[in-house]
Parts: sequence; C-alpha cells; structure tokens
Amino acid sequence: MNAARPDVVVVGGGLIGCALAAELAVRGRSVTVVDRAEPGSEASGAAAGMLTPQSEARVRDPFFDLAVESRGLYPAWARGLEEETGVDVGYRRTGLLHCRLEGDAAGAPAEPFAWQRAAGLAVLARRREELSVEAGGRLSHDVRDAVLFPDEAVVNPRPLTRAVWLSAVRRGAVVRTGTAVLGFRIEKGACRGVDTEAGPIEAETTVDAAGAWAAFNGRLPFTLPVQPVRGQIVELALREPLATIVSSDEVYLVPRPDGTVLLGSTVEFVGFEKAVTAEAVARLVAAALRLVPGLGSARFVTAWSGLRPGTPDGLPVLGASPVPGLFFAAGHFRNGILLAPITARILADLLTDGPARDLTPFSIERFAPVLRIA
Amino acid sequence: MNAARPDVVVVGGGLIGCALAAELAVRGRSVTVVDRAEPGSEASGAAAGMLTPQSEARVRDPFFDLAVESRGLYPAWARGLEEETGVDVGYRRTGLLHCRLEGDAAGAPAEPFAWQRAAGLAVLARRREELSVEAGGRLSHDVRDAVLFPDEAVVNPRPLTRAVWLSAVRRGAVVRTGTAVLGFRIEKGACRGVDTEAGPIEAETTVDAAGAWAAFNGRLPFTLPVQPVRGQIVELALREPLATIVSSDEVYLVPRPDGTVLLGSTVEFVGFEKAVTAEAVARLVAAALRLVPGLGSARFVTAWSGLRPGTPDGLPVLGASPVPGLFFAAGHFRNGILLAPITARILADLLTDGPARDLTPFSIERFAPVLRIA
Repeated sequence: MNAARPDVVVVGGGLIGCALAAELAVRGRSVTVVDRAEPGSEASGAAAGMLTPQSEARVRDPFFDLAVESRGLYPAWARGLEEETGVDVGYRRTGLLHCRLEGDAAGAPAEPFAWQRAAGLAVLARRREELSVEAGGRLSHDVRDAVLFPDEAVVNPRPLTRAVWLSAVRRGAVVRTGTAVLGFRIEKGACRGVDTEAGPIEAETTVDAAGAWAAFNGRLPFTLPVQPVRGQIVELALREPLATIVSSDEVYLVPRPDGTVLLGSTVEFVGFEKAVTAEAVARLVAAALRLVPGLGSARFVTAWSGLRPGTPDGLPVLGASPVPGLFFAAGHFRNGILLAPITARILADLLTDGPARDLTPFSIERFAPVLRIA
Repeated sequence: MNAARPDVVVVGGGLIGCALAAELAVRGRSVTVVDRAEPGSEASGAAAGMLTPQSEARVRDPFFDLAVESRGLYPAWARGLEEETGVDVGYRRTGLLHCRLEGDAAGAPAEPFAWQRAAGLAVLARRREELSVEAGGRLSHDVRDAVLFPDEAVVNPRPLTRAVWLSAVRRGAVVRTGTAVLGFRIEKGACRGVDTEAGPIEAETTVDAAGAWAAFNGRLPFTLPVQPVRGQIVELALREPLATIVSSDEVYLVPRPDGTVLLGSTVEFVGFEKAVTAEAVARLVAAALRLVPGLGSARFVTAWSGLRPGTPDGLPVLGASPVPGLFFAAGHFRNGILLAPITARILADLLTDGPARDLTPFSIERFAPVLRIA
C-alpha cells in the first residue's frame, strides 16, 4: 500500500502538514500525513486567522519579507482551495486598524512604519476624526489616532484547515488520523520514516510539522527548541459586525463573516495545558471594551485556547536537519496560518528540486543542535 | 386518561411546578404538569443554588421568615429525594462568608445582622486574621473583615430539578413536556384548566407556576406583574475547591462538589433575551478576582444566563387569584430554588385543606389586579 512506503511522511496534520502534503502530491510525490488527531484539532483550529505581517513588524528582516510574501500567496491559494473543495475558507482583505489609546507612546502614529512605506507597502495614518469611517463610529473616545494597513487580511482557520486536508486527499495524499508517532526511524545516521502506534511508516524523507509537539519530548535525535506557548481567544457575537480588524497594544479584534468577533490573545508559557483561564477572559474583554465600548452588550459565545509552537527567537524552523532525510516545517509560533502557503511551497521546492532559496535565517543550525546519535 | 382531566393542572414544569406536583400526588391528588420544555430548561437549571436567606436580609419581615423556614426544610427534602430517586441533589450546609473590602461601609461587620442573632440565628463576625481558616488563606489582602453565616447552604439546581421531576412522576403525576400552554379556560368566571398546543386540559384547579412567563403575555384574565430579570453566571474550575460560599457586595462565589465555582450574578431588565454578554463575564470575573486573586488561574468552564421571575416588590405571588380555580406559585425572583419546598407545601396545603396560613403579604391582591373578564 502506498501509505506503507510513501516518498515523504509528514508528521503532523495541522494546516502546514496538510498544505505541504497537498503541494507535494500535486508534484507527483506520494505522501502520508500522520497525526494522533484530526487536522484542525490543535493550533490550526484555535488560531484567529490574522494575515497581518505589517502591523506587528518594527524592522525589515528576512522574516518580514517571508511573511509578506506568504500573505501575497493567500488570495490565489484561498480561491484555488474553494474551487477544488467547495469550502469557503473565509479569506477577506479587511485591513487592520491599529489604534493608539490615551497614554500610549507619543509621536506621529505611522512613524514606526515609515520603512514599510519605503518598501512599497500601504501604511495610512488616521487622525481621530477620520476614524468613524473604518470603525463605524464605535471606537472609544480614548482612541487618539491610528494606523490603517489596508492590505492586512483574515482567513477562517477551521474551514481553511479542512479545505487543505480535503485538497491533500483529493490529490492522492494519505492522511492517517488517530495515529500517534512514537519515534523516528534512524538507519545508518539517516532518517527513514517514523514508528507509529499502528506500526512503522518507512519513507526516504520525513518532515516534522508537529507544531507545539515538534520536539517530540526528546525523541528526536537532537534537540529542537520548540515549546508550547498558550494563546487564549474569546468569541463574541455582535449585532453589527466590524468591517476591519481593530487592534490596540493590548488586544486585537478579528471580525468573522458571520458577525462574530474574536478577541486575542495571550502569550503564556504553561506547558501543554490548554485551559482557558478566568483572568485571560476578563483581561481580553476589558481590553476590547477600552477599544470598542459597545462590545459590552455583545453576546459572549465561547472561549478557547491553543498551543503555538514557540522558538527562542520567535522564528520558524524550516528546511534540512542535522540528520539526512529529516526536514522541518516547524516552530511557526504566532504565524502558522499566515506562513502556511509559503512554508508548503518552500519545503516542496526543497524536497523536489533541492536547495535553492536561502533558508539560513530559519535553519535549525542557528540553535547549534547537538546530535545524540550518529 | 388521567392526564385529560386531572384534579390539578400545574402550568410550568420548573422546580416549583414539579415540587408542587410531587407534593399533591403524595396527598392523593391527580396532577398534570404542562411545559413547553423539560424541567430545568429555564431558571431552575440556570440558578446557582444558594440557600442563603440570611446574608442578604436587612430586616425581619414575613418574607425572611418564609425563606428561613424553607431553608430549614431542605435537609430532609434533599435526603428524601435522594432516597426516592437515587439522584444526588448536592445539598450541603457550606456556610456563607460575606466579606467587606477596603472602601465598603464602616462599622462592626455583623452589626446590620444583630436582629438575626436576636431571632436565634447564627451570625459570626470575623476579623481579617481569623479568615484564613474558612477560605484557606486565599482571600485578597483587600478583605477587611467578614460575617460568617454557618447555616447558609447550597444545592445543585439541575440534579435537584431532575430529582423532583422523577419524584413527581414516580408518585403518579403526569409531566407533559414539549407542550406550550396557549391560554386559560374560563367558564362562568372560574378557571377550569388550560388550552395547550396538544388540546385542552380540563381541571378543577389550575396553578400558574410558569416562572418568568407566568404573566402569559396578557393571556391571563387579569394583570400579573411578573417580568423576566436576567441573571448571568460564570463557571470556573479550581484546583482546590472553596469550602464555603464567599461573597462581597459585588459578587458571590458558590462552590460545587466537583471543584467548580459559580460566579454570580447580574440583575438585568432586558426582556426575554437570555444572552451572556461580554461585559457581564468580564465584570463577574473581575469582582471575583478582587475577592480571591488566585481565581485568575482558574479554568474558565462556561457561562450562561437565566430569566428570573421578578415582581415589583421582589416578593413571590402565592395562593389564590381573583378567578376561582386559578392559583399562583409565581414571581419567586432570586429565590425560586430556596423557596421551592415551602411553596410546594403551602400550595398543597391550600389546595387540599383550604386556607389556613396567612398569605396576605404574598397575595396578588397587593397589586390590585384588574379583572378583564368576569
């Protein structure tokens, strides 16, 4: 059976694992994705779905360029997935309005983003009196001014992950859910697949795309510094939906097409504990009310948390590992949804055509990994 | 069929309606309870379950005496229900610790409750340094002092309502769920049952126990001033359960045997809208954190709201109506769970033995109801 000895085994069936499988399958490679749960069960299904590289960047670096490139892939990727699978993945170029409240840093609001303008990206300063258009007059009187990033966008991660799963399967990839990976098969110093609860899956090439679990609790043949970073989200339902993402330094509000809004998020180092806490819910809602007071009467729908794969420098781990045959699509921290299409393309290029793109900034080598076995 | 012409039809299958049916059935009356939903679907299932007449009372009046009497019925009622139905209804005499925070009213903490002591009830003042025993040292440093009411208790309203439902059925009452009452059958100036979606139910005696819906939107033959008053509750899960109910002037924390705690509640006049709002969730949690800061790391489980049956003076409406054959067990506002056993007993006494107890303070006559038909 194809699944027993595919060309590539992808460990982790989140958005990135499935996107890579779909990309490899369309290039004629046989691929098996293996995961203990269904696609979307973990961080891919918990994300808010912001495709917003600009509003949080303060310097231009290879990561920024990667993120903007990936955002640029989204319109065609989303359209293609919808045509292929019939799933509406909720891609919308909503723009993002980053607000400064009384007490925030002084100076011209768009000044920290001047370098983005120089790079040809849209950054629009907004005075208080200009804001009623974008936010429907609902912003707090404490909002002093804002910066509008009109090209920032959103996607709905749960249907997106299902669509990418369907796409991978439709193209011939095998997605084995309900099957935990127990370890990596190392033969003569090279990785030749994985051992799972359901037996071995042998493959020339193995890709670790296991999100917050990518370090495999020490069962990799070297140290991968990826750890879970909890993020909590509150979902509210509004009578009148927000037209754009609205954020402050404390919180972001992500509109969904169905009229709900997601309030995010926390950054917590609490291990693999996926709980929603009282304090986070109260803090997110309070911060949202400081920005849009009318949200007080919004209906509280639910709250959840997810575990992002954090790295020491916040950058992903992409490409080759110290062990031949083993590759990474890991450590995407807060940008897994945004970086999914570019990650799938980069890894598929690397695995089908060999090294071409400079992945040095994202290589595991930056952490000087120590091999435990040769 | 018994259900078609019972002695008594009870409109409303909440805790009070079912409790009355069980009480009438055991006295040999045939009873049909009719409700559009299952017992516990509305306020009975949404309540926190505090059996706490003392901590909110500031004067001795007939209502206070009624509430303390009903609290006194609970231990035997709960034990009997558990023996009869096998359902653990969660009755516990936990006590209630009412805390004063910095900035609250001055004076000796137990002073406003001196009249309760005079009436023979337990009221214990607690200085700050004495509080570590009851609350496990978890109270905020802003708690100045407190009053402990050791006889206040809790019950778990959802299993309680199911147990009372089971008890009523076991004793021979008929509980017709999924059947909305359309109107009251008035013949020669007397009420002779109700019309429902599933046809008429004729009965010598009709009892309106329909909670927030008891006014029947004007379809009663006179005006009953009962309106919905929304209350919201947040449920958190703690590592170490609270031993006692803890409250401030802003919030109460009700411990559940499974280690969760309920934070309540709001008092909102918003009609029949049962939503949970962002603001209420944030406010309840913030008030709870002011009292017990360690709750910040508690797991947020869920939140819900219920519609209490409010009256202009906050007192229930019990006993006869201006129309012969029609009686009330209605308008229990924030005390429906607490007053359920005494209400069932009073109404059952009235319907089987005739007037004995003075119900003047709780009579609908205090609202001078105007008959619309004779």
